[in-house]
Amino acid sequence: MSFWTDAQLRSIDRMLNPESIAIVGASPKGGYGGRLFNAVLKSKDRVRIYPVNPNYPQILGVRCYPSVSELPEAPDLVGIAVPYDKVLGVLHESHRKGAGSAVVISAGFAERGIEARLELQQRVGAFARESGLRMAGPNCLGLANVTNDIWPTASSRTLGGLTGPIGLVCQSGATAFGPFLVRAVDSGIGLSYIVSTGNEADLDFADFARYLLDDPDTRVIAGFVEGFKDVHKVIAVAEMAAECAKPIVLIKIGRSESGARAARSHTAALTGADALYDAVFKQYGIIRVQDYDDLLETSHLLARQRKPKRRGIAVVSHSGGISSLTADMCGLAGLELPRLSDTARDGINAVVKEFGWAANPADVTGFSRSAEFPRIMQHMIDEPDVGTLVIASSGAGNQVEQVIELRERSDKNVTFFWTGSRSDKGPLLKLKSANIPIFYTPAKLAGGLKALLDYHDWRDRRLAGEKAQATAPTPEQKHMIERLGALGRPNLSENEGKQVLAAWGIAGTREVVVQSAQAAVDAAQRLGYPVALKIDSPDIAHKTEAGVVRLGLDGADAVRMAYAEIIANAVTHAPNAAIAGVLVQEMVSDAVEVIVGVSYDAQLGPMLLLGSGGVMVEVFGDVAHRHCPITRTEAHAMIAQVKGAKLLRGFRGRPAADIDALADTLVRVSHLAVHLDGRLAELDINPLMVLPTGVKAVDALVVLRAQPGPKDRAESAVLSRTSGSPP
Amino acid sequence: MSFWTDAQLRSIDRMLNPESIAIVGASPKGGYGGRLFNAVLKSKDRVRIYPVNPNYPQILGVRCYPSVSELPEAPDLVGIAVPYDKVLGVLHESHRKGAGSAVVISAGFAERGIEARLELQQRVGAFARESGLRMAGPNCLGLANVTNDIWPTASSRTLGGLTGPIGLVCQSGATAFGPFLVRAVDSGIGLSYIVSTGNEADLDFADFARYLLDDPDTRVIAGFVEGFKDVHKVIAVAEMAAECAKPIVLIKIGRSESGARAARSHTAALTGADALYDAVFKQYGIIRVQDYDDLLETSHLLARQRKPKRRGIAVVSHSGGISSLTADMCGLAGLELPRLSDTARDGINAVVKEFGWAANPADVTGFSRSAEFPRIMQHMIDEPDVGTLVIASSGAGNQVEQVIELRERSDKNVTFFWTGSRSDKGPLLKLKSANIPIFYTPAKLAGGLKALLDYHDWRDRRLAGEKAQATAPTPEQKHMIERLGALGRPNLSENEGKQVLAAWGIAGTREVVVQSAQAAVDAAQRLGYPVALKIDSPDIAHKTEAGVVRLGLDGADAVRMAYAEIIANAVTHAPNAAIAGVLVQEMVSDAVEVIVGVSYDAQLGPMLLLGSGGVMVEVFGDVAHRHCPITRTEAHAMIAQVKGAKLLRGFRGRPAADIDALADTLVRVSHLAVHLDGRLAELDINPLMVLPTGVKAVDALVVLRAQPGPKDRAESAVLSRTSGSPP
Repeated sequence: MSFWTDAQLRSIDRMLNPESIAIVGASPKGGYGGRLFNAVLKSKDRVRIYPVNPNYPQILGVRCYPSVSELPEAPDLVGIAVPYDKVLGVLHESHRKGAGSAVVISAGFAERGIEARLELQQRVGAFARESGLRMAGPNCLGLANVTNDIWPTASSRTLGGLTGPIGLVCQSGATAFGPFLVRAVDSGIGLSYIVSTGNEADLDFADFARYLLDDPDTRVIAGFVEGFKDVHKVIAVAEMAAECAKPIVLIKIGRSESGARAARSHTAALTGADALYDAVFKQYGIIRVQDYDDLLETSHLLARQRKPKRRGIAVVSHSGGISSLTADMCGLAGLELPRLSDTARDGINAVVKEFGWAANPADVTGFSRSAEFPRIMQHMIDEPDVGTLVIASSGAGNQVEQVIELRERSDKNVTFFWTGSRSDKGPLLKLKSANIPIFYTPAKLAGGLKALLDYHDWRDRRLAGEKAQATAPTPEQKHMIERLGALGRPNLSENEGKQVLAAWGIAGTREVVVQSAQAAVDAAQRLGYPVALKIDSPDIAHKTEAGVVRLGLDGADAVRMAYAEIIANAVTHAPNAAIAGVLVQEMVSDAVEVIVGVSYDAQLGPMLLLGSGGVMVEVFGDVAHRHCPITRTEAHAMIAQVKGAKLLRGFRGRPAADIDALADTLVRVSHLAVHLDGRLAELDINPLMVLPTGVKAVDALVVLRAQPGPKDRAESAVLSRTSGSPP
Repeated sequence: MSFWTDAQLRSIDRMLNPESIAIVGASPKGGYGGRLFNAVLKSKDRVRIYPVNPNYPQILGVRCYPSVSELPEAPDLVGIAVPYDKVLGVLHESHRKGAGSAVVISAGFAERGIEARLELQQRVGAFARESGLRMAGPNCLGLANVTNDIWPTASSRTLGGLTGPIGLVCQSGATAFGPFLVRAVDSGIGLSYIVSTGNEADLDFADFARYLLDDPDTRVIAGFVEGFKDVHKVIAVAEMAAECAKPIVLIKIGRSESGARAARSHTAALTGADALYDAVFKQYGIIRVQDYDDLLETSHLLARQRKPKRRGIAVVSHSGGISSLTADMCGLAGLELPRLSDTARDGINAVVKEFGWAANPADVTGFSRSAEFPRIMQHMIDEPDVGTLVIASSGAGNQVEQVIELRERSDKNVTFFWTGSRSDKGPLLKLKSANIPIFYTPAKLAGGLKALLDYHDWRDRRLAGEKAQATAPTPEQKHMIERLGALGRPNLSENEGKQVLAAWGIAGTREVVVQSAQAAVDAAQRLGYPVALKIDSPDIAHKTEAGVVRLGLDGADAVRMAYAEIIANAVTHAPNAAIAGVLVQEMVSDAVEVIVGVSYDAQLGPMLLLGSGGVMVEVFGDVAHRHCPITRTEAHAMIAQVKGAKLLRGFRGRPAADIDALADTLVRVSHLAVHLDGRLAELDINPLMVLPTGVKAVDALVVLRAQPGPKDRAESAVLSRTSGSPP
């Protein structure tokens, strides 16, 4: 399934590469319409420009048309800067005229927080989708084709001719044409396109990202997003981006409650639980960064650097203090600085004699501005474990020319950590012109290098690994899906939950549901002591609190007594609960407890959770999330991410647990989550015991989505009154 | 006790505020001596300058002297740029002449990594201390009195007249006069002094920081340190700095192994375990930052802002995207953005009408450059929970003048998050001249504001709280110290360890040491079942692994059998171990386990550790450290820092544990650590049980420092063969 049609991509193409542009609301008086017209007028030698305004025969010497209908041709792009209540009319008229696309600068829609304006925006978006006249906005600042110098934007700023391989897509127009644009100029980082998507009534971040994947001038997609309209489109774009090796680098608001609140308050987009987004970004190779400089500098690095041959970083500086700080921040980010080989150390010492320090990081004192500096750099970059050489300096002497020359010559990566003034007009400008990636703080340098390495590692694993795709449901699974659909109540008892798990091949404890104390004793006998007794009821979810669980029972008397207590407590605790019986269950020991769960996020859909067991998950929040379905590779990555999983590898002399079986279980649960999408509300296996061989679900909580038309619970049929697997 | 004498401070004063400077090694040919002479020569209208070099009658028109002895006066400061082997001679001569201080630029000392050069450096340092001719360096770049524009430095850079209240002390000269100097110029942040301390043969970071505490032109001390010569001096300075409200802001290398290695490789300073440094910095209110910009921007903020009246931050911007990102990063850093009151919201809405969003953060669109912007800012800063207003913008219209005017008028703080170009020469320059604190990325803004709030909170608590001082040892404690001194072996048995704890008022389990199975049964009877039996031996530290622990024994037979097994296993496991007997111990339940320990860091001295109990400390590294002694306030801060301490507050229906008793125990252990400094190698109470009332040490490991002249362990007397506290 694809979210994108050829017609849609053609419409976006006419928007971003127009040969003719009409500006409705053009004016000689300034304002949004005036600025928009002014901005496009600069490309009039390449693009046919038509101001539209019934009040002027001409504007700035260009013939003005009273309406879109009267234009001499159907324009590729209609820029719209009219009052909000006129926008839909202009779109209709533009569609009739045969226009290719629209960008709506006009504000006054969903961002007003008024129901009627949200509805109007929805009508505008629906018209764009239905008519095929696709649009950006409303409430945006327009866009720029930087490569061809066409600027249909109501901002008066430009990049001053700075083109480059980064396509920037921002929801906030004031951010796109504000901090991003000025910081790009400051840093000499060129862009291919700038798109502000505003309220995204029609086209959203993912749509423009999708277009840019096909654009030969764009190698990295940089985004600033307050909330996604549809995360599934983002995931789809990320999957395609991995294929064609175009990284997506993103600022996504919502890391804190204050930010999420702010984002909600002024756009129609929703933010969601940030930890889940973080998980999805990691899972699909989207690089998340924090601020304007990060986004530009990291995107620039990714666009300009090859895949590093090795993970090792070498650092050379004129100063011991600078090289220490650089190494310290690199180490803190998890980068490796391999120790120098004797060859390299002796080679560098032959140059620096008794000055400086031939190591990694290297402190080569004044030799960093000598004619011998290339020899030093060569020694370091030739080290077998080094993939990237970082020069931490301020470009004295011919240093910068030597670095540029090395970059041309070497098949490894060269990056500059600039310690001089940001406004240097000498060597810094040369580095910028040569498109050497430059960082200005050691933390951003380390963060950028780490992102580059991690991206390529992720992509290699992705391309090598199996595809995350849920298998087709087996007949048994289909049968279970049907039974759940016919159940008529949302809650399942523990034993019913385990039957669901069993259909997806996830083992539970050996257990029997019984309806008498004697049957309990018989079952315990067959299972072998000690056993656990628990109520089996769809209506009692918190069993321990209700006093309907007895553990470690080691004889017939204990079982009999426990049976009586459990029935008595169940009746007291929940007089109206449907009771399927009492569960007699084997006790599982010598295992590592984990928690596996599924939740359905309103935006992200089915999300899988793995947490360490017991109190650790609550005290330390020690969990990993993934979007379902997952691959076995992702399952192992999840396990590695949970700190408590250390216990799985055999801790303090305990035997190692079956990590492969856990990974397999995670994959199965993720398939279950996909198969039951729309039916399942929540699944919790707490605890799942990971044994030296295999796993066992000791408890299972399954909640279905509330069915339309509630029934009397006590009357509804239970899934099965007998156990699934006899002991 | 003070580390500083008046004579030493006077010598530093003559160094930093000289009226006469001699440059030994001055030269017209450039090089270090040439640059140093050139730099001081610029202050010749205020300072008497004497070049010293036997090869020239004059340099640059100034009369040159063949030696220091022949100078017409005893100079306040002697700048030394001669070969390393001449330095000591010049110092001797300068001392004879009566010079006040010296700065040694010459390199070739400990940084060479050769034993002979380290020794030479030690001789140089010792001479400076003994003679009273105190010195900075060697291997530094000199210093600058920025306030009075005197630059005895071998760097040719200056701050261009930018003075301000920040005193900068760097070990690395190339860092001080490199990135810090150029970034300060970039950011318009003025300094009072710049001192590069190099190898710190004599004066170190702490000495200059101490001097700057008395300097009226310095309000914040900014430092860049690879390793401290003596952390106790740093702690002493930090304590004094808290008194006079001069924050210390620091970059300290050693956050990662790569950085620590780099720092060790080129200076004589040592780095230590970073987590311990972090703990000490927090404990003594030292603000740790990451890079050049952080250090300057945060120092500037601390120097220019008052103590905020409230913790709340209000953010106003012209852009929703910018305000969201700002709020997001502030929230992520733990800052509070209080919701606006109705009054403020209505007041702002009366200005912005239907545009923008009157909230916190506020998006006021183009009104941010209107004449009404002051009304909007006033509404926000007047909010009762707001202590700081952040303007996130790029200074359009008269915005900057309005902000400067507000700052003058308001008794709350005003800070700018600048989203425009860093090289803006209009409004940005006005903000810089007005000394409004400016940040350029939202993360640095948030980090700076957090540092300011936390610093004042810390200082308030510090000034209000008791002094961290170990009480004088009681007679019982003195007696124990003597007994430990006479012990003649490093290891104590568990019961002996608990006697040590008892002397400092820390309760252990009720327990008896017995020498027969029958005595064990009798003891168990008196203690009450169930009991634990453990070997009591100074020579078996890992009891569980040796099979000499039996828990939960609930009858005479079980005790008898356990006694026999333990004795048998002890003999098998450690045939030569001295065995004091078998410990019969009460079982403690319904308590929260924690770990309390003491270690002695080579640089920091006694460090206290609190960790969550069981596997959590190992799996999650869930510990807090403090330098001993601590106050009760610090004890509670430690407890709050350990995540597993959540369990202490009553988790999942369990009763709350006695947090006050735990805090009291931490203080007592910290006093023990101070009293036994020099004697104790290691102390571990694992676990310490925190009960609903009180605490109990269940196990105690005490290791003394190895005594000179080892004895036969089996022969050495055990501390006591009978229990401390009968049941």
